[in-house]
Amino acid sequence: MAIWTGFSFGRAGAWSVLSARVVAGPSVAGVGGRLSIADGRTEPDATLSIRGVVSNVRYANRAELTELRAAQEGLGRPAATIASLIPISKSDAWWALAQDERRAIFEEQSRHHSIGVRYLPEIARKLYHCRDLGENFDFLTWFEFAPAHETRFDDLLAELRASREWTYVTREIDIRLTRVAG
Amino acid sequence: MAIWTGFSFGRAGAWSVLSARVVAGPSVAGVGGRLSIADGRTEPDATLSIRGVVSNVRYANRAELTELRAAQEGLGRPAATIASLIPISKSDAWWALAQDERRAIFEEQSRHHSIGVRYLPEIARKLYHCRDLGENFDFLTWFEFAPAHETRFDDLLAELRASREWTYVTREIDIRLTRVAG
Repeated sequence: MAIWTGFSFGRAGAWSVLSARVVAGPSVAGVGGRLSIADGRTEPDATLSIRGVVSNVRYANRAELTELRAAQEGLGRPAATIASLIPISKSDAWWALAQDERRAIFEEQSRHHSIGVRYLPEIARKLYHCRDLGENFDFLTWFEFAPAHETRFDDLLAELRASREWTYVTREIDIRLTRVAG
Repeated sequence: MAIWTGFSFGRAGAWSVLSARVVAGPSVAGVGGRLSIADGRTEPDATLSIRGVVSNVRYANRAELTELRAAQEGLGRPAATIASLIPISKSDAWWALAQDERRAIFEEQSRHHSIGVRYLPEIARKLYHCRDLGENFDFLTWFEFAPAHETRFDDLLAELRASREWTYVTREIDIRLTRVAG
């Protein structure tokens, strides 16, 4: 059993939206103001809320998990005052692939894990799954980093977006935020 | 985006409960009477309702999917008047495994796919995922078969329950039903 997390844009929350850019697919209404993140709850007066759930690993093998866990740092580092929330959807063609086909595109062809590891520990990351919850996006990825590392973060995104895996991405919104009091 | 399916026990529904047996873990209250199955809805007066969602394939490779699709028949066959609904949970240890470790246990060690294929087309099957929805079970599997094939169905379950994969099953309820009018 897993408890979902609600991401709610509106007047409250510890993060303030700096920008939102549509990278692929249709725009999304209601991104702006503050972002509140709460387990099992969305804000009733939110201009937009999206639910996601931390689930089991879908592609990483044991060696990759070990490498990730040795290199990564957690969320909430005092210096990591910039965040990015990236909602993504993939095509029906992606979801119809067999497990070995998705794994081969994810890593052997696109190097998703290998690329991400090179940006550790500067870029901290947490992945939420939305598709099985019936949301309009398939994933939410939350990133945190220091302002000085935003250029590196942009490089990470550029590498991933140039990969074969990204040819299956049908919708992507790149939201940047800064941590505020309260 | 996927829409969940609600399984509701109560006074209405096309299936009538014949028996319920706890195979592993704690019992569950409220199984009995009729079973109603509806997309995106549970019955408000249900004695028990469980939600599940049909999701993407998690372990099967392309060759296995091809083999399955060539051999299987759909739900709703007129002769398939017996059903079984089997809610299952797996341990935290299972969910903490890497993808390659779960795949190896599922197929290379436990032959989950290979066993299931030998019981096609007699035993039709549909898998629903519950864990990411926050339900008390991780999976629901729905089986349909003719009364004459119930012994074969019991053989299938015995094979799976003897596998290494089943050492990770912490809760399992075996519910048998028969199709009724309305």
